[in-house]
Amino acid sequence: MVRSAAWADRSSIREVLLTSQIFGPSDAECVDEMFAETWMRPRPDGYNWLVATAPSGQIGGFACFGLESLTKNTWDLFWICLRPEMRGKGAGRLLINEAVRCATDVGGRIMVIYTSSNPAYAPARRLYESAGFVTSAQVPDYYIDGDNLLIYWRRLCPKPV
Amino acid sequence: MVRSAAWADRSSIREVLLTSQIFGPSDAECVDEMFAETWMRPRPDGYNWLVATAPSGQIGGFACFGLESLTKNTWDLFWICLRPEMRGKGAGRLLINEAVRCATDVGGRIMVIYTSSNPAYAPARRLYESAGFVTSAQVPDYYIDGDNLLIYWRRLCPKPV
Repeated sequence: MVRSAAWADRSSIREVLLTSQIFGPSDAECVDEMFAETWMRPRPDGYNWLVATAPSGQIGGFACFGLESLTKNTWDLFWICLRPEMRGKGAGRLLINEAVRCATDVGGRIMVIYTSSNPAYAPARRLYESAGFVTSAQVPDYYIDGDNLLIYWRRLCPKPV
Repeated sequence: MVRSAAWADRSSIREVLLTSQIFGPSDAECVDEMFAETWMRPRPDGYNWLVATAPSGQIGGFACFGLESLTKNTWDLFWICLRPEMRGKGAGRLLINEAVRCATDVGGRIMVIYTSSNPAYAPARRLYESAGFVTSAQVPDYYIDGDNLLIYWRRLCPKPV
């Protein structure tokens, strides 16, 4: 099940990242800061948070998305992460679909995802592609030498003719 | 002359943007928030500010740059803007060169500049190119339909072999 996150989910989201075997403590700290900011300094163009729950009620993953500043209705899927045991069961797809639906409902025009070319992210890239995203751009050596930035992209509404 | 910005330069930087005929009030607000944050919540990976002064002492332009979060020594030239009467006289080049020097001195590996494909930015793009930046990536319709994101890129130190 996918629902909006609540303040009480803060530590679970942190734990999802730290046990992900993909993201590390600096990522967890960055996300935690964004999560705190969402509740401490609410703003109309702030971050949106979704969590995927297992049948037990445990938080199995989350997504964070929002308007890209200085753009006209471009949305950014900033973070998506699942516990290892939750992967490959459709939860990632549910999170992305819900983020896409929320953004489209408020007039979202396109959505972008910034990610890494690192082999560890291959399953994530397949997930983005299965949800209709295509690689629109690549910045060489962005994260570190040999690890490029990939920018995935999809339209949310048809481009006017 | 190019020097580090001081807190007292805040209103001049805002004015440079608002009289730029390129950037608008929402850009000025975004920059002002970043400027305030630099002084209110200092952090090692915070923003760096340079100003270019005219012989009269007036602030003729500014640049803002910093480490790109979650990367290894990737720097971002977030903003660079000159008063219309200061353009084409080498001040933009001085600002970029100084930003590149500062970043390189502390181990900067690459520098990126996110900008728009809008014709209004053509002089800025020529400036980036003359300072050794190349377009590494392009995201279609990023700012608004028909206005792409361009990511300029240059190495600051040679890539190890």
